[in-house]
Parts: sequence; C-alpha cells; structure tokens
Amino acid sequence: MPETSTVRDFTVTPVRGGVTAPEGFRSAALHCGIKAAATALDLAVIAADATASAAGLFTTNLAQAAPVLVSKRHLQHSLGLARAIVVNSGCANACTGDQGMADAARMASDVAAALSCRPEHVLVASTGVIGVSLKMDKVSSGIRDAASALARGKGSETARAIMTTDPFPKEHAVTVHTGRGSFTVGGTAKGSGMIEPNMATMLGFLTTDARVSPALLHRALRESARDTFNAITVDGECSTNDSLFAMASGASGVVIDEDNYPALVGALLEVSKELALGIVRGGEGATKLIAVHVSDASSLDDARRVARTIANSLLVKTAVHGADPNWGRIVAAAGRSGVQFDVQRATVHVGGILLFEHGLPHDDAAPIAQEHLKGTEVQIDVALGTGGRHDATIWTCDLSAEYVRINGEYRT
Amino acid sequence: MPETSTVRDFTVTPVRGGVTAPEGFRSAALHCGIKAAATALDLAVIAADATASAAGLFTTNLAQAAPVLVSKRHLQHSLGLARAIVVNSGCANACTGDQGMADAARMASDVAAALSCRPEHVLVASTGVIGVSLKMDKVSSGIRDAASALARGKGSETARAIMTTDPFPKEHAVTVHTGRGSFTVGGTAKGSGMIEPNMATMLGFLTTDARVSPALLHRALRESARDTFNAITVDGECSTNDSLFAMASGASGVVIDEDNYPALVGALLEVSKELALGIVRGGEGATKLIAVHVSDASSLDDARRVARTIANSLLVKTAVHGADPNWGRIVAAAGRSGVQFDVQRATVHVGGILLFEHGLPHDDAAPIAQEHLKGTEVQIDVALGTGGRHDATIWTCDLSAEYVRINGEYRT
Repeated sequence: MPETSTVRDFTVTPVRGGVTAPEGFRSAALHCGIKAAATALDLAVIAADATASAAGLFTTNLAQAAPVLVSKRHLQHSLGLARAIVVNSGCANACTGDQGMADAARMASDVAAALSCRPEHVLVASTGVIGVSLKMDKVSSGIRDAASALARGKGSETARAIMTTDPFPKEHAVTVHTGRGSFTVGGTAKGSGMIEPNMATMLGFLTTDARVSPALLHRALRESARDTFNAITVDGECSTNDSLFAMASGASGVVIDEDNYPALVGALLEVSKELALGIVRGGEGATKLIAVHVSDASSLDDARRVARTIANSLLVKTAVHGADPNWGRIVAAAGRSGVQFDVQRATVHVGGILLFEHGLPHDDAAPIAQEHLKGTEVQIDVALGTGGRHDATIWTCDLSAEYVRINGEYRT
Repeated sequence: MPETSTVRDFTVTPVRGGVTAPEGFRSAALHCGIKAAATALDLAVIAADATASAAGLFTTNLAQAAPVLVSKRHLQHSLGLARAIVVNSGCANACTGDQGMADAARMASDVAAALSCRPEHVLVASTGVIGVSLKMDKVSSGIRDAASALARGKGSETARAIMTTDPFPKEHAVTVHTGRGSFTVGGTAKGSGMIEPNMATMLGFLTTDARVSPALLHRALRESARDTFNAITVDGECSTNDSLFAMASGASGVVIDEDNYPALVGALLEVSKELALGIVRGGEGATKLIAVHVSDASSLDDARRVARTIANSLLVKTAVHGADPNWGRIVAAAGRSGVQFDVQRATVHVGGILLFEHGLPHDDAAPIAQEHLKGTEVQIDVALGTGGRHDATIWTCDLSAEYVRINGEYRT
C-alpha cells in the first residue's frame, strides 16, 4: 500500500474493505440468474444499518434507463436519505418502457420489504444489455437472499457483482484522520463493456461513516466527481445508465461542516480517482492509461474541453497505441477543440519530453518520447500558449483493434 | 453512367474529364520526389487559360498549415481571382514555422513565374505528413516541369497526384443544360484520415466554365459544401490543411446571375456529393458507407448535431461494421447529443426497418435489419419525436480494426 499522504490539515491512509470499509455498512452479492454462468455474481445490495444521508449523480443522456429515473425520484422524495442501494449486472433495464419502470420500482420495494424501510429509501442501479426486461422472479428472490446475507467484509464480492466485461474489479477505501477524529470513505465502481451490446455504463458507489447532511454530501460528491469520474473517457460515449451514489452513515461520529469539508472532499477524491483510473485502465481493449493535461487556458471549462478533445481523438488514441510520438495529431486536436489556441506559442510534451514549440517540432527528441509511449502510463502535456491560468487533466486509454473486435461482433 | 436527371429548369448530365472537363482549364501531374516511390505522383498544377474567378473554404482548425494561410491571403489580395492551383501530396507543410510560410509562398511564385501571372493569383494546397518541411528544390523543379506539361484530359492523373492513403482517386464532372446554354462543372478531391470537414485533410478542387463573379462563386461553393463536403465525417477529426477551391473560367459564355444561380449550385452539389461520398467510401479502413438521417429537429443545426453525434459514435460505427442492428447505441448517441430528444416518441429505422418506437425495441425485425447491414451502403433514420420540422443527413463510414492498424503503426 502507498504510504500515508498529508493534505492540508488531515491525513489520508488507504485501508482494506472497499464499500464496507466505513462503519455502518454491510453488503451482500450473489448469482440470482440474470447472467448465464451459474457462478457469475449478478446482484448486490449495499445497506446502511440505519437511514443514511445520500446523494446521486446521473447520466446526462436524455435516454435514461428506468433505474436512473426511479433513483432520481427516490432521492427527491426522500430529501436525500437512503437505507440501501440495490444493483444488478447483466441487464440494463433500459428502453424497457412501463414494464422497466415497474421492475425498477419493484427492486426498491423488495429491498424495502426485506429491510423494513420505505421504498424511496432504496436506490437502484442496473448495467448490462439494453432493451431486455429483467427476470423479476429471479431478481426478487435474489434480493430476499441478499438481504438476509448482509455482512461486513463483502466489499470484494460486491465489486465483482457489478462487473460486466470489466477485466478486473475496482474497489478502494481510505481512512481520514483529522483533528476532530477519523472517518473512512470506501467505494466500488464498474466501467465500460457489457455482456452483449456493449454500452459503456459507469456505475460507482461510495460510502462513508462521516456524519454529513445530504446537501453537503451532494456538494462533495459533485466536487470530487468533477476531477475523477467526470474527467475520464474511454470512447466519448455517455450511457443510459451511468450513476454515481454516495451514502453517509455517520457511524464514525465525525461531523462534516464547512471547516472539515475539505477532508471529506479529499477522501472522496482519493477513492474516486483510484476507481475512475481503474475504469480507464480496464477500458475495452485498453493497453495504456493516458493522462492529458492542458494548461494556459482562460477557464477550467476551456482546459477540460481541449483535454477532452485530445483524449477522444481517434488519431491520438491510435498513435499512442502504436507508441508513435505524433505531436502533429495532438496539435491538430487542440486546434479544432473550439478553444483559443496559439500554435506559435503552444508547447506539447509527451512523457515530459518537449516535442513541439514555436510552431515547430523537436523531432530529435521523438525517440525518447517513443520509449515513454511504449510503457503502460502515458503523460501528454499541452500548453495552449494563450497566457491563461487554468489547467485540467482528462484520463483516457488507447484505441486498439481489440476495441473494434469487442464492439463489432454480432450480438448473437 | 447514370441517366440524365432533371432538376427544376435545368438538366445535369455526368461527363468525363474530372477537373479539366470544363472549358478553359488544363492540368499536369508528376512525381517530383516528395513521395519515396519513384512512380508515385506527388505534385499537380490546375491552371485556367486566363485569370478566373476563384473561391475557397478552409479548415476551421486554429492550427492552420502554411498553404492554408497563404491561399487565404492570396484570395483576399486578389479579390477572388486566380489563375492556378498548385498542390502537393506527401508533405502537409503544417507546423513548419516561417520556413513553411516561405515555402508555400515560393510554390505560388514558382507557378506564377512559369505562367507569367501574379503570385497572388496562385492558390496552394498540401497534404501529407505534419511537421516536415518541403524539399523545395524538388518542388520548384517539379513545378517548372508541370507548367510546361499542362494539357486537357489529365484530370485522372491530377486526381491521383493528390492522394495520400486514399484507396482510390476521386473525380467527377457534369454538364448542366439550361435555357441559356450549357456549362460544365468538374472536380477532384482527396480524403482518408482526419475527415470531419469544416474542413478535413480533405482537399477538393472544383472547376467550371460558367461565367460567375467571385462573390457569387463563393456563395455557391459555401452553399453546396454544406450538404456535401461539410456533411461527412470519417473520424471526427478536422485537419490543419483542409481546403476546398473553386475556379470559374467563364469559357462556356454562360453567365451565372440570380436567375440561373440554382443551376450552378445544383451542378456543384452533384459533383461535390459524388466526391464527398467517395471520400467516406475511401475512409481509412472503411468497408461501408453509412447515411445518418435525422428528422423532427427544431432547426437544421440541431438535426446536423444529432446526426453528427451518431455518425461519430464509435459504438455505432463498430456495430455497423459488425452488422449488428444495435438500435440501443443509436438511441444512446442521440440522447447524449445535447439536442432535444423524446425517447418515448422517437423512432429508429435501419435500412427502412423499424427497430425502436414508443420507448421499446422491435427485436423481431432485427434479423431483416441485419441483412441490410451486411451490405456496403447503410441507411439509419432517426426521428427525434419532438415535432420539429428540420432534417439533415451526415455520411460516415464504419470503424474497423484496419483503421486502428493504419493509424496505430509507427510513422517510420
């Protein structure tokens, strides 16, 4: 484990346990029968021991899946309180009409019945095939079994139960030590790829035993997601099901107010970044993690826009895949991003090697940059040359023939 | 050849000859030594017999190559007149600093010297590798040779000389018969990677023997490019060098005024569409031409935006490549386009087969749509379900592993 890092007036230490690392949370994961393989986990419940503060961020896609619509409604009706999250993999319950809405609501009420809580205190998430309805008899039965099996220490199983074609599970947790006591933040997430039609769905679930109001939790979630879950792209697609939930049990007794709010955001950032980069590393066909850092922008939005344009450029992604130090494609992507860019003053570094400045290449340095590109972690730095003071990083992965194979195969 | 088509009060008939089909134009193409292979054509001159009206559209990328900057300056100084276009392939003369600007200007002055015209009456275009300077001794010598070899009937060689990784040359010409006489429009274009015009290293050269003012020619070029060269995308990239030029010799004696302006636009549309679709068909790794038609939009811009989002979706492009009737990816792309979209009222047709309506799939029809997708021309129709009255078509190609191979190999 990396060593303890000190940030401002709190320290953050990685701990084990994922989503059940914080006090006051239990989880369960099992195979209920959505996925074909009898050993494949496809259902999980993450439950707080009592009603908790909750917050959610959702896909901005106008085609929103039933679980997204139901979860948004529940968070609104409950004024930001929740007892549990129920999630299935293998079926997205998207484009499933009225039946899909009824099924998502039923998942919540099944959990509510088992935990003796109100249905609007249950958040719902699904990931998998679009346009196929859930087998609700199996799901309901699975929910009953899961509710009776809730326990601490099942974070890893939960992380595996939400996977679709993810190559590895993603979980992380940290304990934050502040002058006012310690609290823990844990989480799990799944990324792109699905069993049959490969809609890239991002699901993320964060838990903490800090004591924080729903409003402040929502603000902290939004703020920490901006530079983590909302700063990654695998293929520029935004799915029908993307959901990020946070729940705060308060079991640590540490109250989050304006004074120690930075400690909560810091911990959420740490866990979220680890999970988000895991999603990129596990992107379909990905072989490299690429950090695109843009500076000199006149606003954060501008910096993010340029970085995102470069990160989504097929020509840049394929060049990195082939370890080609092709600064020309980076310059061209920056130039078409719609953001002010001065090609005569801009600079491009790859792996810290200066490849372009004063409108001209440094081709003598290309072989060194190429060595960097042969590794699995690639750093691209672009200064726009316009004298702005904002910068941003977007993470992406390379584009391989394997991505095309995964997404181009017949949906048998 | 397709049969004569009648549009309003003029008829358009395809003819042979490409860029030198119209009266008053000659061209020459040769190997001057930019490309390695001794037989590879890499330089062309297209010349009018006398000063002609001229117009140009250029890349909107802020990183603009030297030939783009020089051509814009020349069109401005000449008030829309030109004698010739000089173009090389194999080197983009982009990101080449002051030397690149001097080289592009030198290409124009070399042509001017050979044709005894003013340098600002020569337009310059380059396509190929970024960040490498032209071998000007070879280019200058090539220009002298080309200028002395200008002839009619060399359209096909000219079309080949502007190719980079294009799999086939693209040229087309039509003769327009109006009540006031006949005139001809010809053209050639090159495409391949970095194709999302506004513009892309897309180069296009159109000639006509109609007699038309520079201002009216510019308006007609802009209008015809909107639904042709500016309605295609291969990979969403917009290059540093995209240029589309039109020259009008007036040699037919047919004067274009407001009355017969539609005939000029009609002919430019016909030639431009043929060339633009050729660029998509010849996109890197492309195996299918995909037309994405979006209706029900509240503005043309909205219709184009949704169509472009679908056309650039990696998941849609890979699904079409694999002949997967994956309406879910089309719905998801439409939903994230930022344009109003009602998933309950929207419809998706593939090859004329209804696959999605009322928020639900028609999976029984999927096998028929799959047969359509196995062909080389794919039609996708999306109605947004919002009651708007605008529609637009964007053409693109599928995304194959071959695209990744072409763009992921070392530059060496």
